[in-house]
Amino acid sequence: MTKGIKQQIIEQVAPDLEKVEIALEHHLNPNLDLVKEIASHLLFSGGKRLRPLLMIHSARLCGYNEGYEIQFSTIFEYLHAATLLHDDVVDEADIRRGKKAAHTKWSAPKVVLTGDFLLARALNIAAKTKEPDIISVIAKITQDMSQGEIDQLNKKGKLDLSEDEYLNVIERKTAVLIQGACQSGAILAKALKEKEDALNQYGYHLGMAFQMADDLLDYTASAQELGKNPGADMREGKLTLPLIHSLANATIEDKDWMEKAIKAESFDQDQFEKLTEKLYSYKGIKYTQDRAKDHVKKAKACLDSFDACQSKQLLCLIADYSIERKV
Amino acid sequence: MTKGIKQQIIEQVAPDLEKVEIALEHHLNPNLDLVKEIASHLLFSGGKRLRPLLMIHSARLCGYNEGYEIQFSTIFEYLHAATLLHDDVVDEADIRRGKKAAHTKWSAPKVVLTGDFLLARALNIAAKTKEPDIISVIAKITQDMSQGEIDQLNKKGKLDLSEDEYLNVIERKTAVLIQGACQSGAILAKALKEKEDALNQYGYHLGMAFQMADDLLDYTASAQELGKNPGADMREGKLTLPLIHSLANATIEDKDWMEKAIKAESFDQDQFEKLTEKLYSYKGIKYTQDRAKDHVKKAKACLDSFDACQSKQLLCLIADYSIERKV
Repeated sequence: MTKGIKQQIIEQVAPDLEKVEIALEHHLNPNLDLVKEIASHLLFSGGKRLRPLLMIHSARLCGYNEGYEIQFSTIFEYLHAATLLHDDVVDEADIRRGKKAAHTKWSAPKVVLTGDFLLARALNIAAKTKEPDIISVIAKITQDMSQGEIDQLNKKGKLDLSEDEYLNVIERKTAVLIQGACQSGAILAKALKEKEDALNQYGYHLGMAFQMADDLLDYTASAQELGKNPGADMREGKLTLPLIHSLANATIEDKDWMEKAIKAESFDQDQFEKLTEKLYSYKGIKYTQDRAKDHVKKAKACLDSFDACQSKQLLCLIADYSIERKV
Repeated sequence: MTKGIKQQIIEQVAPDLEKVEIALEHHLNPNLDLVKEIASHLLFSGGKRLRPLLMIHSARLCGYNEGYEIQFSTIFEYLHAATLLHDDVVDEADIRRGKKAAHTKWSAPKVVLTGDFLLARALNIAAKTKEPDIISVIAKITQDMSQGEIDQLNKKGKLDLSEDEYLNVIERKTAVLIQGACQSGAILAKALKEKEDALNQYGYHLGMAFQMADDLLDYTASAQELGKNPGADMREGKLTLPLIHSLANATIEDKDWMEKAIKAESFDQDQFEKLTEKLYSYKGIKYTQDRAKDHVKKAKACLDSFDACQSKQLLCLIADYSIERKV
């Protein structure tokens, strides 16, 4: 089943994807070799290009046919890369996509400034759309993401993080950017407000499902599948839904044990497996899967008002894939 | 004389300045108190609001009369504040405007993210101008400044920095933003391309003069006037024009002594005074003053084609003040 969805998506997007890669390479073009080197390290390390694809197909779904959707879609990959560079510095994460994070190879200041450069590239291309509303969307994304990250930093190690607080964090951390990519596709196509809103909401639900799936994988996937050690969130003091839900339903004894495990300086494989078992037995895994499935269902429902076409079919497949994927 | 110019400027800009302060406060409006606190620490610590004033008067000089120049001028103060926050983290400077730099009070990641937030605010307001060219200007500024900072980082401690390399650094570090503020005023007023170019060039020369004056003050002003210790640039391994010119003209013996002084771990007041004397005797101070004066002259010449009016007079006064100021 999973391989089926992935295969279908790959077949449909391959020709566009090739053009997106060329456009990303073409628009990077900094004056300094070092900036290119740092930016490329992340930008060409096997990203799925989800955000560009979403913008491209949102635009096409709304009837856009002026031919610039591939060029403009790079906005959202540069923006994504810029936030990843800043986040890596902020989180002090050492591994990203199975490679050493940029800030472990170059000084944190250089990585921050390269992030600024990529944001500037995104803006430069966005200005060429001549759509001020796309700029407003980018401003909102940057505003929400930066505040979301600060909020998450402040909440690091907070053991009583509520489900609502978690939803708020992942909305700003992940959903707003995916939402923005979809909405911008609609704006580019000069779609009716109701179509723009529908794609915005599609993006919101897809983003929420996508992040919940990510948070599940952090407990259920292998190090090889993830390209980093499982349990990284917990080790960084970030509570995600599987854990939040399990903590809320655990016996006092088990809750105590889990809280101690989270606060522990080091954490061996046996302990991690014991924790994962508790996430299953207290239904944290199942609950998160169900919430993610709800979001996928809602995402697809947002597309109901659109006529059947290849882009609609693809956006539905992407929604299904968001929670079926293994990486 | 100096007090005369300053007094004239203050009298002319006071009513606008009050409105700029209110607008800066009004548009800040983040969701998180912490973001407001970090942003306000820098934003309301006695900046001169040079960039907003330049945009306001560039717009008026080009006949803009739609009444939004004050609101839109905040773009360039937020942008300026965003770059200062990132620069403080990058340079690890401890003092800014006589106060502790933000990153010494809050963690570097929080400061970086607050910088991102301020950039987003600038963008949000820029989108409201409905002028894609202003977005392109902002993109160019961000691109140049981030690359300029990385370049400067790479050149830290480079003892054979040439005058051309120095000019390149200060153009990207300071001039592009001032240039952008002036140019954006013209774009807002839908000025003819030649007027837009003239204001762009006025901003370039003003920015170059302004930074050279800053680099002079680092050797000639007192700690009290500067709000930080003199000689900070040199201590950070940044060679500026007074030093570059003096090194190029010094005897081998004096050059050796100066290079050792720059590389020294610590540096007492006596040594600093001896170095300053050499900057005078090898004409590094005089040469920099002359170059700055040239730029002021050129800046004012860029305004020749504009009819006499209050804004023109003010922009001329600001050019004069850029090199007469003591702080």
